[in-house]
Amino acid sequence: MSETAEPTRAGRRGRGGGGAARRAERTAVSFDTAKTITRNIPNLEMLSEEALDVIEANAETVLEEIGVAFVDNPDALDRWRAVGADVTGERVRIPKGLARKLCATAPSTFVQHARNPEKSVTIGGKDLVLAPVYGPPFVRDSEGGRRYATIADFEKFVKLAYMSKWLHHSGGTVCEPTDVPVNKRHLDMLMAHMTLSDKPFMGSVTDPSRAKDSIEMCEILFGKDFVADNTVMTSLININSPLTFDETMMGALEVYAAHNQAAIISPFIVGGAMAPVSVMGTLTQVLAEVMAGVAYSQIIRPGAPVIFGTFVTSIDMNSGAPTFGTPEAAHITNGAGQLARRLGLPYRSAGSFCGSKLPDAQAAYETANSLNMGLLSGVNFMLHSCGWLEGGLVADFEKFVLDADQLGTLHHMAKGVEIDENAQAMDAIREVGPGGHYLGCEHTQKNFKTAFWRSEVFDYKPFETWEEEGARDSQTLAASRVTKLIDTYVAPPLDPEIKAALEAYVADKKASMPDSFM
Amino acid sequence: MSETAEPTRAGRRGRGGGGAARRAERTAVSFDTAKTITRNIPNLEMLSEEALDVIEANAETVLEEIGVAFVDNPDALDRWRAVGADVTGERVRIPKGLARKLCATAPSTFVQHARNPEKSVTIGGKDLVLAPVYGPPFVRDSEGGRRYATIADFEKFVKLAYMSKWLHHSGGTVCEPTDVPVNKRHLDMLMAHMTLSDKPFMGSVTDPSRAKDSIEMCEILFGKDFVADNTVMTSLININSPLTFDETMMGALEVYAAHNQAAIISPFIVGGAMAPVSVMGTLTQVLAEVMAGVAYSQIIRPGAPVIFGTFVTSIDMNSGAPTFGTPEAAHITNGAGQLARRLGLPYRSAGSFCGSKLPDAQAAYETANSLNMGLLSGVNFMLHSCGWLEGGLVADFEKFVLDADQLGTLHHMAKGVEIDENAQAMDAIREVGPGGHYLGCEHTQKNFKTAFWRSEVFDYKPFETWEEEGARDSQTLAASRVTKLIDTYVAPPLDPEIKAALEAYVADKKASMPDSFM
Repeated sequence: MSETAEPTRAGRRGRGGGGAARRAERTAVSFDTAKTITRNIPNLEMLSEEALDVIEANAETVLEEIGVAFVDNPDALDRWRAVGADVTGERVRIPKGLARKLCATAPSTFVQHARNPEKSVTIGGKDLVLAPVYGPPFVRDSEGGRRYATIADFEKFVKLAYMSKWLHHSGGTVCEPTDVPVNKRHLDMLMAHMTLSDKPFMGSVTDPSRAKDSIEMCEILFGKDFVADNTVMTSLININSPLTFDETMMGALEVYAAHNQAAIISPFIVGGAMAPVSVMGTLTQVLAEVMAGVAYSQIIRPGAPVIFGTFVTSIDMNSGAPTFGTPEAAHITNGAGQLARRLGLPYRSAGSFCGSKLPDAQAAYETANSLNMGLLSGVNFMLHSCGWLEGGLVADFEKFVLDADQLGTLHHMAKGVEIDENAQAMDAIREVGPGGHYLGCEHTQKNFKTAFWRSEVFDYKPFETWEEEGARDSQTLAASRVTKLIDTYVAPPLDPEIKAALEAYVADKKASMPDSFM
Repeated sequence: MSETAEPTRAGRRGRGGGGAARRAERTAVSFDTAKTITRNIPNLEMLSEEALDVIEANAETVLEEIGVAFVDNPDALDRWRAVGADVTGERVRIPKGLARKLCATAPSTFVQHARNPEKSVTIGGKDLVLAPVYGPPFVRDSEGGRRYATIADFEKFVKLAYMSKWLHHSGGTVCEPTDVPVNKRHLDMLMAHMTLSDKPFMGSVTDPSRAKDSIEMCEILFGKDFVADNTVMTSLININSPLTFDETMMGALEVYAAHNQAAIISPFIVGGAMAPVSVMGTLTQVLAEVMAGVAYSQIIRPGAPVIFGTFVTSIDMNSGAPTFGTPEAAHITNGAGQLARRLGLPYRSAGSFCGSKLPDAQAAYETANSLNMGLLSGVNFMLHSCGWLEGGLVADFEKFVLDADQLGTLHHMAKGVEIDENAQAMDAIREVGPGGHYLGCEHTQKNFKTAFWRSEVFDYKPFETWEEEGARDSQTLAASRVTKLIDTYVAPPLDPEIKAALEAYVADKKASMPDSFM
C-alpha cells in the first residue's frame, strides 16, 4: 500500500479538465480549504489512570462473560470461532485479551485520499478532520421551513461543504434524499460528492451491495489500481448498542475492510436507553463494543484502517428525548478519547449536536459545548461538525453555515500560542507606553491581518448600523450567506471522460433493478 | 481575622425576620443555590513552562524599564518611593523582583461572607464563584426592546440572580440605573443587593467616598465588628490599560484594601487597542499590570484579599469593534490562569461575553466558548457569567436566564466522573445484555434522577408538540422564564431594624448632597 501515490485518473485540480472546466476555474470565486487541524495544544484528560484501568478491565469482563451478538451472520460466527472466541448461538464471548490483541494490527493513523490530492486528509495522531452532518431525513431553512429532504437539498449541502473553508471532508449522507428510491440513493449521493466537490467523502453502508457499488464508483474516479492500494473512503459503521452487531452494518464493514477502505466503528448510544445512566458504565460498554467491532475488522483484513467511534448523548428522563451539549456527554466524549489513545486508534466523536428545532440560542449553546469538547478531547474525525438540528432529524442550511464558520475557532484555538520575538511584542509595549494605544503602532500594522480569527457570518456592526440594516439575527445573516455561497459556486474541474463513465455506471445500475422505497 | 465567625446582626435565613418574613418564607417557591463549583477535573494548560517563563521575565522588564503611571495620586507615588521604586513624574518604575515580592503577602484564597452564612463563598483554589453581568447602561428584552437601564431594571436583575440556582453571587452594577443621579446610584444599588438578595455582593468603585459608603452600609448590615474582621465585599478595580492606574479606581482600592475588603485587580483590554495584537504580548502586559496593582494593594495593607483579574477581548480590525468568544481570547484566558496560579492568587476571567445585539445563535456560540474556557482555565471568580449582550453595552433579561441555566453545565462538568461500583454499572450491563434496553433496569431507576444535567429553559419536546405550542425559540422560552421567576419571587427575610437603619442611612446620604448626573 502506497500512501503517497497520487490518483491516476481524476488528476490534480485543473489537470484533465476540458475547456469548460478551465473557464469555470477562471471565473470561480476565490476560496480556500484549510488544512486539517494539527493540534499544538494539549488534550484535556478528565479521567484518572485509575478510572481508565477500571474501565478497561470491566470491558474485558463484559466481552468474556456477557459477550456480543452478531445477528444473522453465520460467516462472522465462524470467523470468531476460528480466532478462539466462545460462540453459542449468535452470542460471541471473547476471552480476555483477545479483542485487544486483534485490535493491535489496526493503524494508528491513515491517509484518506481525495481526488484533489491537496485535500487528502490524515486521520489520527494530532490531526482533526471535520465532516458535515450525516443522516437527517428532513431539511430546514427560514424560507421553506422543515420538510423532507430531496436530492436537490443533498447537492446544495455538498456545494456548501465544498465552499466551506473549515470543512476538510464532504461527508456522506448529509441528508436522506427521500425523493430517490432507497436502493438507488447511494448512487446519486456518491455522484454528488464525486462531481460537485473534490474533498474526501464516505461510502454507502445501508447494504453490502451498496458498499461494493461505492468501491466500483471510486475505481472509476480514482483508477482501479489506486483504489487497490489506497484508502479513498471512510464510512460509518454503527453498532446497534447494547452489544449487538447487525448483518447490514457488518456486511458493509466486511466489504470495506476487505478492500482496505476505512470504517468508523461507532456505538450509537442514548445514555439511559442503550447504555447505563452513568459515565463509567457507558464508557465500559463503548470500549467493549468498539474493541469487538475493530477486532472483527482486523479478522477480515489485518491492517484495515478503522476509527474508534463514540456517538453518545444523554436522555431527558422527563420526556425521553435525547439531549445534547450536556456535561455528561462531555465526560464521555473526553473519556472515550483517552481510551482510544490507549488503544492506539484514531478517534471519532462530538459534532454540532443540539436538540433545538431552530438555529437559535439553545442550538448554539449545545453545539458550542460539543465542538469545544471535541477539540479538547483529541477527536481525530468529527462527523456532524456542522448543520445538525433537532436531535439529528433535520439538516439545517442556516445552521450549516453558522456551525461551519465556528469551526474556524477550533482551527485557531488548536494552533496554540506563538512565542517568538515578534509574538512577545516587547518593542510594541515600549513604543506605546502607559496611556497610549496600539492601533497604529508598527507591531499592530505588521500583524493585525492574521492576529485574530474573524467570523464571516456574525454581526460586528455598531447598534445603529445594524438596526438600519434591518436588525438581522444570526439566522437571517446565515440565510444570506447560504445564498451567497450557492450563487458563487463553481464545480471543481473533473475529466469529462470520468464524469461520463460515472454517469454511465449509475444509469446502468439504476436500470438493473426496480425502484424500492423500503 | 476570623473566617468562620458569623454575621452578628443580619442573622441566618429565617432568624431575625418578623412575622411578615416568616409568612413569606412559608409561601416562597422552593429553590436552591448551588454551592460554589469545586473542580474535580484538571485545568487545561495551553502554554508551556517555557512560554510562561518568558512572559514572567518580560513582565519584570516592562515594570523596571517602562514602568506604570499612577495618575493624579501623589500619595501613591510616595508609597511607591518608600518601598524602593524609581518614581519620575507620575511614572513608577519597579525594580525586577519587587512587585512579585510585594504580591506574596496576598492570600491565595479568602472567604467572602454573605449575610446568609450558607451563601458565603470561598474565592481561590479549586473553587469557581459565578456572578452576573456588570456595568451595562442599557437593558433589553423582547417586549421592551433596547432601552436605558433604570433602578427598577436593576432590582429585577437582583431578584433573578437571587433565584438562579447556579449563581453564587449577586454581583455589583448589574446594570447602570441611569434614572438615579450618578452620585447617589451606589446607595440604591447596595440597598437592592442587601435587601432583595442574601447572596454576596460587590461595592462601589466610582469614587473613594462611595467605597466608604459601601463599607458603612455593610457595617449596618453585618455589624461593625464583623466587617472589621471579615471580607464582606469583592469589588472591581479596573486598570486603565496600558499600564495606567487612575486616581478614582486607585482611591477606591485604597479604601477597600485598608478595610480588608477584596478587590479584583483587572486590566481592561481590547487586544490590538489597549495591548499588542499577540497573545504573548498581551499576557506580558496583563501580568505587569496585575502585579503592579496587587503590589500596591499590599503596600496599603499586607494580606488584603485581591484577585488576579483579566478582561481581554480581541478587536475586529475591519470595524474596530470588540469581538468575543474568539480563540485568541481563549488563549489569553487560559494563559492568564496559568500565570495567576504561579503567582498564587485567585483568578478572575471569562463570562457570558458576546457581541451580538440579540440573544441569538451568535450570542450563544460566543458565550458558550467563553464559559467553557473559563471553567477549564481555572477561573475562581467569573464576573459577567450571565446576561451580557452587545459587547457589554446591554444587560439582557432573556439572555440572563439562558446563560444562568447554562452555568449548570459548568457545575456538572466540574464534578468530574464518579468511579465507584454503582458508577461502574456492571450489574446493569449484565442485566440488560445484547439487544436489550436500560430504561427500566434497576440501576437506571436508582440513578436517573441525578444522572444527567437538565436545562430548565430549553425545549426538549417532540417537534409536533413544540409546533402546537407556538414553535417558540429560545428567546421566547426565556421570556416566559423571566416572568415566572419574577412572579414567584419572595424577598429573603431581613431584620426590620436593619432594613430601617439602611433606609435611614441612604435617606441621610441622599439629603446631604445635590443630585449630580456627571
